[in-house]
Amino acid sequence: ADIPKEQWAQVTEKDGVITYKKIPVPTPGHDEVLVNIKYSGVCHTDLHALDNDWPLPRKTPVIGGHEGAGVVVQKGELVTNVDIGDKVGVKWLMSTCFHCTFCQQALESLCPKAQLSGYTKDGTFQQYCVANAAHLARFPPQTDLSAVAPIMCAGLTVYKGLKESDTRPGQYVAIVGAGGGLGTIGIQYAHAMGLNVIAIDGGKEKGEACKKLGASMYIDFKESKDLVADVKKATHDGLGPQGVVLLAPQEQPFQQATGYVRSHGTVVCIGMPAGAKVSMPVFDTVVRMIKVKGSYVGNREDTAEALDFFLRGKVHAPYKVIGLSQLQSVFDEMRANRVIGRYVMDMSK
Amino acid sequence: ADIPKEQWAQVTEKDGVITYKKIPVPTPGHDEVLVNIKYSGVCHTDLHALDNDWPLPRKTPVIGGHEGAGVVVQKGELVTNVDIGDKVGVKWLMSTCFHCTFCQQALESLCPKAQLSGYTKDGTFQQYCVANAAHLARFPPQTDLSAVAPIMCAGLTVYKGLKESDTRPGQYVAIVGAGGGLGTIGIQYAHAMGLNVIAIDGGKEKGEACKKLGASMYIDFKESKDLVADVKKATHDGLGPQGVVLLAPQEQPFQQATGYVRSHGTVVCIGMPAGAKVSMPVFDTVVRMIKVKGSYVGNREDTAEALDFFLRGKVHAPYKVIGLSQLQSVFDEMRANRVIGRYVMDMSK
Amino acid sequence: ADIPKEQWAQVTEKDGVITYKKIPVPTPGHDEVLVNIKYSGVCHTDLHALDNDWPLPRKTPVIGGHEGAGVVVQKGELVTNVDIGDKVGVKWLMSTCFHCTFCQQALESLCPKAQLSGYTKDGTFQQYCVANAAHLARFPPQTDLSAVAPIMCAGLTVYKGLKESDTRPGQYVAIVGAGGGLGTIGIQYAHAMGLNVIAIDGGKEKGEACKKLGASMYIDFKESKDLVADVKKATHDGLGPQGVVLLAPQEQPFQQATGYVRSHGTVVCIGMPAGAKVSMPVFDTVVRMIKVKGSYVGNREDTAEALDFFLRGKVHAPYKVIGLSQLQSVFDEMRANRVIGRYVMDMSK
Amino acid sequence: ADIPKEQWAQVTEKDGVITYKKIPVPTPGHDEVLVNIKYSGVCHTDLHALDNDWPLPRKTPVIGGHEGAGVVVQKGELVTNVDIGDKVGVKWLMSTCFHCTFCQQALESLCPKAQLSGYTKDGTFQQYCVANAAHLARFPPQTDLSAVAPIMCAGLTVYKGLKESDTRPGQYVAIVGAGGGLGTIGIQYAHAMGLNVIAIDGGKEKGEACKKLGASMYIDFKESKDLVADVKKATHDGLGPQGVVLLAPQEQPFQQATGYVRSHGTVVCIGMPAGAKVSMPVFDTVVRMIKVKGSYVGNREDTAEALDFFLRGKVHAPYKVIGLSQLQSVFDEMRANRVIGRYVMDMSK
Ligand SMILES: [Zn+2]
Ligand SMILES: [Zn+2]
Ligand SMILES: [Zn+2]
Ligand SMILES: [Zn+2]
Ligand SMILES: [Zn+2]
Ligand SMILES: [Zn+2]
Ligand SMILES: [Zn+2]
Ligand SMILES: [Zn+2]
Repeated sequence: ADIPKEQWAQVTEKDGVITYKKIPVPTPGHDEVLVNIKYSGVCHTDLHALDNDWPLPRKTPVIGGHEGAGVVVQKGELVTNVDIGDKVGVKWLMSTCFHCTFCQQALESLCPKAQLSGYTKDGTFQQYCVANAAHLARFPPQTDLSAVAPIMCAGLTVYKGLKESDTRPGQYVAIVGAGGGLGTIGIQYAHAMGLNVIAIDGGKEKGEACKKLGASMYIDFKESKDLVADVKKATHDGLGPQGVVLLAPQEQPFQQATGYVRSHGTVVCIGMPAGAKVSMPVFDTVVRMIKVKGSYVGNREDTAEALDFFLRGKVHAPYKVIGLSQLQSVFDEMRANRVIGRYVMDMSK
Repeated sequence: ADIPKEQWAQVTEKDGVITYKKIPVPTPGHDEVLVNIKYSGVCHTDLHALDNDWPLPRKTPVIGGHEGAGVVVQKGELVTNVDIGDKVGVKWLMSTCFHCTFCQQALESLCPKAQLSGYTKDGTFQQYCVANAAHLARFPPQTDLSAVAPIMCAGLTVYKGLKESDTRPGQYVAIVGAGGGLGTIGIQYAHAMGLNVIAIDGGKEKGEACKKLGASMYIDFKESKDLVADVKKATHDGLGPQGVVLLAPQEQPFQQATGYVRSHGTVVCIGMPAGAKVSMPVFDTVVRMIKVKGSYVGNREDTAEALDFFLRGKVHAPYKVIGLSQLQSVFDEMRANRVIGRYVMDMSK
Repeated sequence: ADIPKEQWAQVTEKDGVITYKKIPVPTPGHDEVLVNIKYSGVCHTDLHALDNDWPLPRKTPVIGGHEGAGVVVQKGELVTNVDIGDKVGVKWLMSTCFHCTFCQQALESLCPKAQLSGYTKDGTFQQYCVANAAHLARFPPQTDLSAVAPIMCAGLTVYKGLKESDTRPGQYVAIVGAGGGLGTIGIQYAHAMGLNVIAIDGGKEKGEACKKLGASMYIDFKESKDLVADVKKATHDGLGPQGVVLLAPQEQPFQQATGYVRSHGTVVCIGMPAGAKVSMPVFDTVVRMIKVKGSYVGNREDTAEALDFFLRGKVHAPYKVIGLSQLQSVFDEMRANRVIGRYVMDMSK
Repeated sequence: ADIPKEQWAQVTEKDGVITYKKIPVPTPGHDEVLVNIKYSGVCHTDLHALDNDWPLPRKTPVIGGHEGAGVVVQKGELVTNVDIGDKVGVKWLMSTCFHCTFCQQALESLCPKAQLSGYTKDGTFQQYCVANAAHLARFPPQTDLSAVAPIMCAGLTVYKGLKESDTRPGQYVAIVGAGGGLGTIGIQYAHAMGLNVIAIDGGKEKGEACKKLGASMYIDFKESKDLVADVKKATHDGLGPQGVVLLAPQEQPFQQATGYVRSHGTVVCIGMPAGAKVSMPVFDTVVRMIKVKGSYVGNREDTAEALDFFLRGKVHAPYKVIGLSQLQSVFDEMRANRVIGRYVMDMSK
């Protein structure tokens, strides 16, 4: 392949500001590859990275992005698991140590030495991205790179969250924020996993979308007078869903979730609003034996599984394609809370 | 056996007040037995029942008590699992429906029709107590009834909490409130289960007691300048304990527990202060994949297991014997937070 | 309801012989009900019961049958979980002790005191059957009693076997004997549970049926030259299915299953040919960490779950209706190995 | 450190024959280290490697050994997880690919590209051994290298087998072959894990040894007239042990194990006699819901855990030290079935 010396990128040189500019193409190390990013999704996390508002140190300057799909064009001399020409995905977890107790248990996302794409390492908002070979997602040749991009973060995260909900096929899972970017993918995963989905969000339009994607029931929190009661009523025995996946754990949805989740059930937190806290009543938590859990991206095996559902046609994230040069407009829409579905950037534009 | 018509009991006719008086001996129904209570422990829950300060309806008048040990003296015609003369235990869960989805899964403590000893049914603070046969703990003939009484609630509860902590032999469990009634038993269970116990409480005396009972380490929260750091340091790799059992989930210990528990670890709430709430930071919960769980007494199998550890001599709850007539003094000491270990009442005095 | 004094039944008075005759209608005990059986499936186990060829004592005379669907017409004075007029199912597990260690863990099928319908107790090949109330399956009013009958044994057994296969949605399960009575239901359960089904059986016709019911792949053991290789090839990475459900564990299919199951995978035995043994090579079992498990009917919770899939329309067992009087012809066809799908008897004919 | 050019080794140039000779010291690759082996245990597997009688290709010539303990004296430029001077252990699993589906799930022992010490790679029967850095066991500085050597295979294998037995503290585990090399370590692990150990072996002497090491009961198969009945009787309720660990799965012990294991219990196969098969009756396996599993060494996390028990003084493998030059005599004793405990070789002699 013909690797250029320069490339276009969106660079954060100062918190909150991105600059679209030409920069040098980087060179991969021994165990790394250079990926020609064809498409990159834009994730809410990218906005946190841009604003640097999380209690986790971020590098500066930084190139954001962690939902990349592209082609390997160069590789370090120790790389054996991918070849030049392979289609691959770049994820939030860019590399881990593989030696710590968490890595030894395949809990890589907890590795204290994890490097994060678009956060502690330059990410996928550039045409050529260096990535650790071991953590690449590997796609078959026929994979549609624009469609698969959102699976790398949104898909993986929500799939893992569903696994962590400890539900089995035939049981109920409530998805809070079901009409949003993660939610619309989550409904499809849950449906393909044999779960009965209770979709929770606001507005009629979202309700229709949720049902089309496979939700058995939709509960509109704008219309409901008693959300806890309504969610419980949506289960055939009135005892509430066995699992809840909270895509937006603001204080109120969390409180409600601990109210309507079935006794012995599980509430999974995925979203991470900066500075948010959740609180729950001890008495109910104890006598109803409720579990509350955090779920954070997924490991390499989870990635392969999430990808497999996509490849078998069970999951398609609705997305709009724009050019890399237009990233600012996506952030603007995000800040205005106007994004429906997912934006995927074509890196050539 | 010679069953009298009248018996002594401690009766709560008005919230907060107990009266020591003679009352009629009750008669068991078809599937019930009459137990001649020989000893009954006094539990913190009895104080909540007395004060009626939980969000759970209590009957009035009520005879408290749910750590009873005695002998079957009469049985309903349908009872087949115990015989007259058998030594048995009466627990908080006095009966359940055996038909609901929770009972069908052996999660009886979640049964919506559960009857609770000393709360929705008259309990063990009387010489002759009616109890459902199916939920009795069954003791071998040689069992010391005074020593086994505290196993019926304190022992069972803390044993179940340890099981719910998802820890395996060789791992670390922190017990918060390790020097108290449940804690001192909990250390012994944890030790017998092959766990490394980090005991947390206040004061030197408690520290020495904890270590004698099997704790590997003791951390004095009164002395520690950074409890989170100190608990982490108590583990050989500095990553914190895999499990935490919170016997007194006040706001501060809970916050600390979510701070020092190992990533992917579990915090179990057992204690239920009236009206308490616990809150946790979403960001940490998610990126460290922490679990928070409630644990509530245990089922019949848990009871048999907790009892088996006791019978094999692995666990001995330190207790003082007093007479039933002296119950008021125990409540007085509890209110003054002066109880060390457990009080067990001799029903004949 | 108007309960007659006499009824029609198929009675086994001598091993191997059934007699269609009038007998008295029995009376339920305290905790029992009388069920007016409307439909009863015929299961391969009924043939073993008839021939008395299992190493498990059977009563004589006996009325066979354990896939009954009917209406409660009378109940003992202690029965609270069903009412007269309720639609209910009678299963192989007719009653258990509810007190032993297995019952305490919701493993009722292992209860040493279990009573078995059509084996140690008179079963559903009669118009009025006495059954223990606690173990009845409970149907909603609109349930089609002929269609639900086979769920009571075939459906429950294969659903439980799939649960025991330790597979998760998205993984592969091979069903051996997929074209038979249990297999055709099993494919549908597996599909509804989000599993990729590799159906294994003999003949083109069965192959087409399996695919229509939801199998992703069909392997014809009559055509395959290397069954182990072919099953492995049917998985996208060539490593074989994570789970195998053996509906007919003859020696050869078992040997093959331990050959093609993925390393760390599970082989579940369900079928029980009289006197059969299975053997496996130790070396492979160890270095590939294979699990082999037996699965035996299911508990009350499993029954409710299996039923729920049926009620949501995910599973429909293909069946033919004949009259109770024609039972002998079903056994004749079974002995000739000519049964396709399930026979369900209309008790009124 | 001063690395010599030549070293002493025991080399297998022809199946069944070892030669003690001087050979060149090898050089580690990028991700490898050179370990100055101080002590190496001798394992029964080494005899299989010598005789080349397993259905698994072995390299020729080969230097055997996979229970090595030594000091890192040289390292490849990519090695970051150990330093020169560190005390480390070399195990059977010498390296794995870290990319396959099994490695991604921390099931490294199932990696199709696994390299095996003393089998597909030269092992620890030499003074300087090359080993993959990622799979080294890491010892604290104060570790006694002769005592820790047997933990690298015997300890790890039996600890993992106990984990795979699905038993919980307080339950029963039967160890078959309890008086042998793995068994004597296994009793100690099981005891430290809170299990009640039923030791099974032949002869009084072994019985006394087993009890000293922590077994609750000893059953002498030479004396027992009905081993199945005797093992069941050794449990307080007569239902048999929840788990069985078979260190020598000959046909007969395996048959017996499936007879006395508690219903719903687990039989773990560890030993791998060349060519052995195990068979079980289908009927019992199904109606008692028995599990049979293979367990094969352990992953890096299992190694760290097994080591931690050793470091905390819970486990000490009885061993005799001899010189590397005397290896032939150990094999002679093994062939004569005369080895008690473990031989550990001092590499300097
Ligand atoms: Zn993201
Ligand atoms: Zn790591
Ligand atoms: Zn219930
Ligand atoms: Zn209590
Ligand atoms: Zn059947
Ligand atoms: Zn039972
Ligand atoms: Zn591998
Ligand atoms: Zn070995």
